[in-house]
Amino acid sequence: MTGAGARMAAEIAEQPSVFDSVVARRTELAGVAGRLAAQRPRFALLAARGSSDHAALYAKYLIEVLLELPAGLVSPSTTTLYGAQPDLSGVLYVTVSQSGGSPDLVEATKAARGRGALTVAVTNTLGSPLAETAEHAVHIGAGEELAVAATKTYTATLLTLYLLVDAARGGRGEAVADLGELAERALAGSADAVTAAVERYRKVERVVTTGRGYSSATAAEAALKLAETSYLGARAYSGADLLHGPVAAIDSGTGVVAVTSKGRGGEAMHDVVAAVRERGADVLAVGSAAADVPASARIDVPATAEEVAPILEILPLQRLALELSLARGGDPDQPRGLSKITRTR
Amino acid sequence: MTGAGARMAAEIAEQPSVFDSVVARRTELAGVAGRLAAQRPRFALLAARGSSDHAALYAKYLIEVLLELPAGLVSPSTTTLYGAQPDLSGVLYVTVSQSGGSPDLVEATKAARGRGALTVAVTNTLGSPLAETAEHAVHIGAGEELAVAATKTYTATLLTLYLLVDAARGGRGEAVADLGELAERALAGSADAVTAAVERYRKVERVVTTGRGYSSATAAEAALKLAETSYLGARAYSGADLLHGPVAAIDSGTGVVAVTSKGRGGEAMHDVVAAVRERGADVLAVGSAAADVPASARIDVPATAEEVAPILEILPLQRLALELSLARGGDPDQPRGLSKITRTR
Repeated sequence: MTGAGARMAAEIAEQPSVFDSVVARRTELAGVAGRLAAQRPRFALLAARGSSDHAALYAKYLIEVLLELPAGLVSPSTTTLYGAQPDLSGVLYVTVSQSGGSPDLVEATKAARGRGALTVAVTNTLGSPLAETAEHAVHIGAGEELAVAATKTYTATLLTLYLLVDAARGGRGEAVADLGELAERALAGSADAVTAAVERYRKVERVVTTGRGYSSATAAEAALKLAETSYLGARAYSGADLLHGPVAAIDSGTGVVAVTSKGRGGEAMHDVVAAVRERGADVLAVGSAAADVPASARIDVPATAEEVAPILEILPLQRLALELSLARGGDPDQPRGLSKITRTR
Repeated sequence: MTGAGARMAAEIAEQPSVFDSVVARRTELAGVAGRLAAQRPRFALLAARGSSDHAALYAKYLIEVLLELPAGLVSPSTTTLYGAQPDLSGVLYVTVSQSGGSPDLVEATKAARGRGALTVAVTNTLGSPLAETAEHAVHIGAGEELAVAATKTYTATLLTLYLLVDAARGGRGEAVADLGELAERALAGSADAVTAAVERYRKVERVVTTGRGYSSATAAEAALKLAETSYLGARAYSGADLLHGPVAAIDSGTGVVAVTSKGRGGEAMHDVVAAVRERGADVLAVGSAAADVPASARIDVPATAEEVAPILEILPLQRLALELSLARGGDPDQPRGLSKITRTR
């Protein structure tokens, strides 16, 4: 495990087998889901930071669409900075943190539990402060993550959240049964397209990532990954927000990564891609519906049920971040000033 | 009303008097707030896009901290794309839209009302489709906005939301009684500092804006304003998220706008400013606590109660966006490809 980016590369490649092992724990996760569902929460709040916040965004869509329960992302700071004390009885309060060590999430979870919330911590660290603080702890079981940029813990978190939500509605994880194999194909099948995209993007300074629906989470995570490993000015917009205003800032000097998978979200991206193309942007379409939009370049990803597509869509984008970082002379395993645990309050 | 940016400049300058007229309608707003509070909602969901989404983020903090009611931002697309049908009985569902014309917000509001939510539309357009769809309509009364970039409608929305929340907790708007006068001072007193900031930033290609707590909304709105008028690669991070990862992408070529007002949020920014300074970034501190952090340059804003600071903090930043756009040869009144009403679904 030597050389620039070796850790990140190894953890990206590990994901298919991580998916297999998460899916193998389906029954255990279904047990937790059953205990949560039995409490009949009236709505869900999710708290997280960084990549985990993008996993929480994905979970918000799952909870709203598949469980038909209202769900919102919350800011730990309303508790940790301002001491807000809302009545949270009957509220499902989900905290997502790879390390389980962020003091602000621990404090927010403790406060939520004290105010009556049904608290669940989703972490990759057994016995972490967060897992100890929440009433229920769910372990994503991705194995230790050595690279600073989260890859396998991000996707394992998405998959764990999907299995929890699917079990809560009585599903048996059918849509992810062969996800490990699909992930293998997604990585192997996209290698050349990723290398070609690196060539397009190595001189670009501004990247906009965009997606709609479930894929909004992929766009957000891809922008963060590109920003933190390649020092690119990368930012994400939901396709709808992009058309509302920021499209004005897009021109031929902007690289646009459009996440488009089969389904409603991907269909809603047609207008978005048309609008950014009209402005002269170079559009890289990524996903199982990449072929359906008039992109300048494409990275295809195997098709799945739309609600699990984000678990695969991000894989080639992680590789793009890794390879772009290397091509630009960086080392994504040693990004300047990044540490794995947030210490903010 | 001619010349590049004349409309935007006029509407920025109009804000002090707009604030006076919104505050003068306090009793009317208190009436609506009373009717909403009487229904004793169990939590709040907010839906919006673009600048209005930043106003919704501000309202989320107000609702959580001042009303101690859980609140979350929702995605209209869970309804409009995926047809989710959560039980929304007892939920306060707030839609914020300057135009009141976005079809997706109208559809989401109609659906929410049909599922039992207590719906409130906050718009600047009497009789707009959104105002007609919601059970309660609140008019922000900012007057017609001609400039494409939202300025007075953004701040008037913040102020209206503050007055609604303050009235719901039994307040009488004391913290904003003289806001028009403070806004006058904020604009007049910051003119030279804004001009100096334009000189610093006219050659910069990447700007990161950051704030914590209530001021997160200011950071988000400032980034959007800079991106849509000056075509800058500008993006916002909450101070906590910034330290979690994206700080790695900050270097001496990045302009960092740190929003720091008196209070808990501003205090929590000290670590953030120290971290970005350590990376060699040029830090422009903006707010009533700008003098408390080791910034490279400052734009002072009159002090207020922390929860209303965002209404003032954004004023010099709107001017910065306007002047930077002009300095870079643009015309913020005619940004490329921006229209005032989102037509996405």
